[in-house]
Amino acid sequence: MLRFSTAGESHGEALVALVSGLPAGVPVDQEYLSRELWRRQQGYGRGGRMRIEKDAAHILSGVRHGKTIGSPVAMTLANNDWKNWEEILPVSEGDAEKHKAVASPRPGHADLPGALKYDFKDARYILERASARESAARVACGALAQMLLRELGIEVASHVIRVGTEELGRDASFEEIRTIRERETVLLACVDPEAEARMKSQVDQALRTGDTVGGVFEVVVHGLPPGVGTHVNWDERLDGLLAQALMSLQAVKAVELGRGVTAASTPGSQVHDAIAYAEEGSGDGFTRFTRERNNAGGIEGGISNGQDLVVRGYLKPISTLRRPLPSVSFDTREETKAAYERSDVCVVPAAGVAGEAMVALTVARLVIDKFGGDSLRELKRNFDSYKDQIRNF
Amino acid sequence: MLRFSTAGESHGEALVALVSGLPAGVPVDQEYLSRELWRRQQGYGRGGRMRIEKDAAHILSGVRHGKTIGSPVAMTLANNDWKNWEEILPVSEGDAEKHKAVASPRPGHADLPGALKYDFKDARYILERASARESAARVACGALAQMLLRELGIEVASHVIRVGTEELGRDASFEEIRTIRERETVLLACVDPEAEARMKSQVDQALRTGDTVGGVFEVVVHGLPPGVGTHVNWDERLDGLLAQALMSLQAVKAVELGRGVTAASTPGSQVHDAIAYAEEGSGDGFTRFTRERNNAGGIEGGISNGQDLVVRGYLKPISTLRRPLPSVSFDTREETKAAYERSDVCVVPAAGVAGEAMVALTVARLVIDKFGGDSLRELKRNFDSYKDQIRNF
Amino acid sequence: MLRFSTAGESHGEALVALVSGLPAGVPVDQEYLSRELWRRQQGYGRGGRMRIEKDAAHILSGVRHGKTIGSPVAMTLANNDWKNWEEILPVSEGDAEKHKAVASPRPGHADLPGALKYDFKDARYILERASARESAARVACGALAQMLLRELGIEVASHVIRVGTEELGRDASFEEIRTIRERETVLLACVDPEAEARMKSQVDQALRTGDTVGGVFEVVVHGLPPGVGTHVNWDERLDGLLAQALMSLQAVKAVELGRGVTAASTPGSQVHDAIAYAEEGSGDGFTRFTRERNNAGGIEGGISNGQDLVVRGYLKPISTLRRPLPSVSFDTREETKAAYERSDVCVVPAAGVAGEAMVALTVARLVIDKFGGDSLRELKRNFDSYKDQIRNF
Amino acid sequence: MLRFSTAGESHGEALVALVSGLPAGVPVDQEYLSRELWRRQQGYGRGGRMRIEKDAAHILSGVRHGKTIGSPVAMTLANNDWKNWEEILPVSEGDAEKHKAVASPRPGHADLPGALKYDFKDARYILERASARESAARVACGALAQMLLRELGIEVASHVIRVGTEELGRDASFEEIRTIRERETVLLACVDPEAEARMKSQVDQALRTGDTVGGVFEVVVHGLPPGVGTHVNWDERLDGLLAQALMSLQAVKAVELGRGVTAASTPGSQVHDAIAYAEEGSGDGFTRFTRERNNAGGIEGGISNGQDLVVRGYLKPISTLRRPLPSVSFDTREETKAAYERSDVCVVPAAGVAGEAMVALTVARLVIDKFGGDSLRELKRNFDSYKDQIRNF
Repeated sequence: MLRFSTAGESHGEALVALVSGLPAGVPVDQEYLSRELWRRQQGYGRGGRMRIEKDAAHILSGVRHGKTIGSPVAMTLANNDWKNWEEILPVSEGDAEKHKAVASPRPGHADLPGALKYDFKDARYILERASARESAARVACGALAQMLLRELGIEVASHVIRVGTEELGRDASFEEIRTIRERETVLLACVDPEAEARMKSQVDQALRTGDTVGGVFEVVVHGLPPGVGTHVNWDERLDGLLAQALMSLQAVKAVELGRGVTAASTPGSQVHDAIAYAEEGSGDGFTRFTRERNNAGGIEGGISNGQDLVVRGYLKPISTLRRPLPSVSFDTREETKAAYERSDVCVVPAAGVAGEAMVALTVARLVIDKFGGDSLRELKRNFDSYKDQIRNF
Repeated sequence: MLRFSTAGESHGEALVALVSGLPAGVPVDQEYLSRELWRRQQGYGRGGRMRIEKDAAHILSGVRHGKTIGSPVAMTLANNDWKNWEEILPVSEGDAEKHKAVASPRPGHADLPGALKYDFKDARYILERASARESAARVACGALAQMLLRELGIEVASHVIRVGTEELGRDASFEEIRTIRERETVLLACVDPEAEARMKSQVDQALRTGDTVGGVFEVVVHGLPPGVGTHVNWDERLDGLLAQALMSLQAVKAVELGRGVTAASTPGSQVHDAIAYAEEGSGDGFTRFTRERNNAGGIEGGISNGQDLVVRGYLKPISTLRRPLPSVSFDTREETKAAYERSDVCVVPAAGVAGEAMVALTVARLVIDKFGGDSLRELKRNFDSYKDQIRNF
Repeated sequence: MLRFSTAGESHGEALVALVSGLPAGVPVDQEYLSRELWRRQQGYGRGGRMRIEKDAAHILSGVRHGKTIGSPVAMTLANNDWKNWEEILPVSEGDAEKHKAVASPRPGHADLPGALKYDFKDARYILERASARESAARVACGALAQMLLRELGIEVASHVIRVGTEELGRDASFEEIRTIRERETVLLACVDPEAEARMKSQVDQALRTGDTVGGVFEVVVHGLPPGVGTHVNWDERLDGLLAQALMSLQAVKAVELGRGVTAASTPGSQVHDAIAYAEEGSGDGFTRFTRERNNAGGIEGGISNGQDLVVRGYLKPISTLRRPLPSVSFDTREETKAAYERSDVCVVPAAGVAGEAMVALTVARLVIDKFGGDSLRELKRNFDSYKDQIRNF
Repeated sequence: MLRFSTAGESHGEALVALVSGLPAGVPVDQEYLSRELWRRQQGYGRGGRMRIEKDAAHILSGVRHGKTIGSPVAMTLANNDWKNWEEILPVSEGDAEKHKAVASPRPGHADLPGALKYDFKDARYILERASARESAARVACGALAQMLLRELGIEVASHVIRVGTEELGRDASFEEIRTIRERETVLLACVDPEAEARMKSQVDQALRTGDTVGGVFEVVVHGLPPGVGTHVNWDERLDGLLAQALMSLQAVKAVELGRGVTAASTPGSQVHDAIAYAEEGSGDGFTRFTRERNNAGGIEGGISNGQDLVVRGYLKPISTLRRPLPSVSFDTREETKAAYERSDVCVVPAAGVAGEAMVALTVARLVIDKFGGDSLRELKRNFDSYKDQIRNF
């Protein structure tokens, strides 16, 4: 079973990423891994920290001679700024004087509920883990999942369809979305230059006003055969697992499959994707069944249906504002401004990259569940024989 | 740990609902349980089956002398129509002639991907389990979770905020939503009669045209203290678990926390819920911290923050249409109309009841994780001492 | 993923058994299921209840037209004596006068720690669930697992190697053990009549003296290929999972793999199973590697190695004695005799049957994990192609 | 929920240990952690590697200012010999010439089944993870669990009761066992010097003959209140979880609770621990109920009963012998000697230390489940109030 977990505080020595359950023999491309981490750090509206640092994942285990060996893959992502934090946030007792307490919780963050829950009058101990920096470790895990999926011809990519009030406003083909992955300069990860320019103006306005701006990213999985996920148990459905995966990302407050939001106000006859049959060649790439549209986002009854999987994450604006919101001091109990640490103004493209990681991990988990196999050779063999089965259905 | 699972086919002998991990000593009100099942069967736009049948949960275990005893609670929900299905869908081999195969898959349902996955040229074996009838068993589980939560002063209720293109269009207080639970006649479970009338006209139109209509329900949890759920692990966050819980419901295609969808297009300064402090009395009912709005839907950083939990499910229109969509016959491979079985036209209020169940189960699980306790007395004691702790934070 | 759970009290209306994760298309033989339940009720030294009752599993879901359909299988095992208990142990409040409280806890049972934990001054609410009767539901689950394994040529059988101080004292071949399954009269499930007679005399002595007697059963899995289970994570190892599976059975207090107990006092050179190679034909039935002995019990490094899997459960004597042990009354706090309800004197053969069930469920779970597949056809195809792979290793 | 996992190869750069679910505020004593790792490296009969190296756990996360903060604790245990292995076993492709393949599998190890499963003709990729070196990471995790348990007055300690054919042959008090933990020189971790001398002679003999020797260790938990673990679900029982925890340790082939092995051949009247009542003071330290013996090992019905928890692991002799066993070459398919790498002759005391870690992690997990609490203060409060409850039972 594919499992992954992360550890690490935002200003600690390192993040840790752990992935277990990958079959043996998967080629691990360290450049690809680095590039995924780089992609997560890009985007118009990021703070200074992103510009000066470059994340790197250092593999400690589970990969030998360039391939997975079946045992868990552990990675560390060093914090390049640790030397400046070592005395502020030491593992050992250290010098309490040097600590940088955070005593005015930021609305929208875990600061206040976390302090209450864990019984700290200092949100520092909460925000260090609640920070979206943690998603870098998820991206490292997701990059491994993507390396596996690519061996099976399954691709995962994301793009941005809204920033603030500005939208893409049209469909994008998978080819267009795939090109976003290849770009050397990530602006707002929008497939349409004109729409991207409009989005950029939203960021500029937030920059000017000390405000922040959210948006919507879309993750698409291409090449996934029908039959992944199941309707039989609520906690094994692909739709539920994808929703958890994305909603667990920092700042995501809504998740949509296909046209889920507009489907709620559209008659059934215009929502569901009618089924047809291709006399020759293949319909959806796996069987002869075809569809002319994909409002379902590639999932019916909690099962992939062979069309592109389409999942959207709605991102609230970043909670840390340069013009901070009203808050209350833990010390004085008086009203004050919320704490401010150097932060970003817009992170929609980066959230999309993290979203790809979470979707890839979810899909890879279910693919491994369905097809089994302890070596890539065995997994591929099982995968191919299933594709034969459904081709001849 | 609170766990639950369901079993059963739509036209099988019975559904089975299993809940494990409730503390001992929780009073079990069988009338409450029956009423929850009744509520799931109501709503304007339901098919004939709902009108003639009345679900009942028969408790086989885990409850003695009116209280839980710590061991798993198993319930059966008999299918009153089993006598008419016993020969069509027998457990034993039976007479193949009497089987009612479903050979033209319905777009939007699990029919086609399920048939491919499980290797059946008959969607009957898929739709029997994929049907939303399964949610009756979830409602039975959820009723138990609600009985526990009520002992702690935590209430869960739902209402409908959109049917088709018609919306409630304003906020509802928890008091208003709670009254929905008490109604003897459920129309569209909307707190506003005028809006409900508009919603009804949407259903009428769908009825006339042989079409179906979806909508949006909102589940609210009132009385949940801050500190439930955690930011520390992606798979223990309250936001992700709620998203999975709702998205795993049949026909839910989007999940929103608080104002998640509109937050994506609103500046941060107008989204986040500023923190203030009440000099006297209590702020949010648990601490002196107060908020003037609740865009976050009661969750920050994956943790409950003491405000009402607000979660929305976006429901696509029912996939089974009286004027069926185009499909393909498994037998002839020719285009045909999708199969039709007597079905509903609108199920938004019922989905809200199922949504309450899933939210209650999710919240109860995390409450039990946080507060421990093998008897209700022990759980309450721990719960109360935590409330003291945060009152004095 | 294969999962199973049980519910139900010993004197409640029914036990419930739930198995999820079986592939579709597995033939379900209800006679086989009944026979497994019958086997669990046999053995020399059982109390009167066993002689008059006959367990039967009623399948409610997951099986249609004689085969699994991929959805969860739920079964009920009715308590034939429920009419006599309905007023004593009702689900609803009932009449407290009619209750049969158990106020003097039996040493060796869950009575005392359970009463403390769940806060009951009445061990009835504990023993009803802690009773070994629950293992009937496990046997029903295990029978389904065995039906699946048999389709892959994997057999599970048990025999008794010790009762009290009397031992079998020699190895048994799998053919001998398999015949135990077929017997119409189960005495002590020993492959050797002379040893069985000695074992019987131990039971006779316990019967005479109002005492009870334990013993050791051995479960053997035949036909399991190498490669099931893994060394990579502590909680995915076959050895640990088998140990949990058996130790979780009522009255099992030690678990041994292969010659685990004597291996601890034997030099390494005489313990480990040297590896040789068969020039022709197959060595262990899967590859050309051969072994002349099987001290490891078919597991090396947490992975099956292609030899027979051999697991032993050490059973303490039944805790309910006709001449009860000293105990203390919950009411008076005075010393008294432990409660007595009609009980068995020896249950080693029955525990072996429950042991088979737990081993079969564990092995089936790992087989499904390794080979994947949603239909039996797909699972078999993957399984066979792996067998080809290792044959050509 | 307490979870832990490990990663890392024996000769890789580092092992990784990850523990999640500890409450916030637990003091972390790094010297204690180091000492536990040192203890695992001690014992008469260890190879050279143990004598020259000293393991250390480097904490990367989850601990700040000397206390846990609620977020996952990640630790690395560097391999001091990595510089000599970096070219032999690189993460990147490296130079295949420098690799040290292991082509003759060692009987008793994961070598052969692992190579078949993961499809490698080189057992190096298997043994690097299957090696008992992995248990160092478990000891690091266990040390954290012990720090938590000690805050609640719960102690875990181990001693050796058999090496080869030599036994302790008498009971040991917890005070005696506790002193083993404090010793500066660990010989064979036996509480009796005379028995230890006999055990030592067994090791000497194995050293002389190029053989290896196993034994039995016993782990005792002192101060655990009744009510931890449960009888209600097979997979939540304390007995089963302990069995899995110990059996998952490398080389453990049998697990015994209390007097589980001899109980199987002893009449019930002499096995079960009669219950009495103390007029004054406390009986078992928690309630007034007392017992005169502890054959049950502190567990009845899968629940702790307030007496010392006693669990034994039976260790087979190390599988790597200086005079190697017969094996087969993966390359030539001819008979050869099994591979040999510098190894130990006896590891029973070290396995006991790893056993303590696994038992501590299991008990801590169930303690956290039962008592809840996100801060040590909250956990302690809940724990103490439960102790009050049962004191007044």
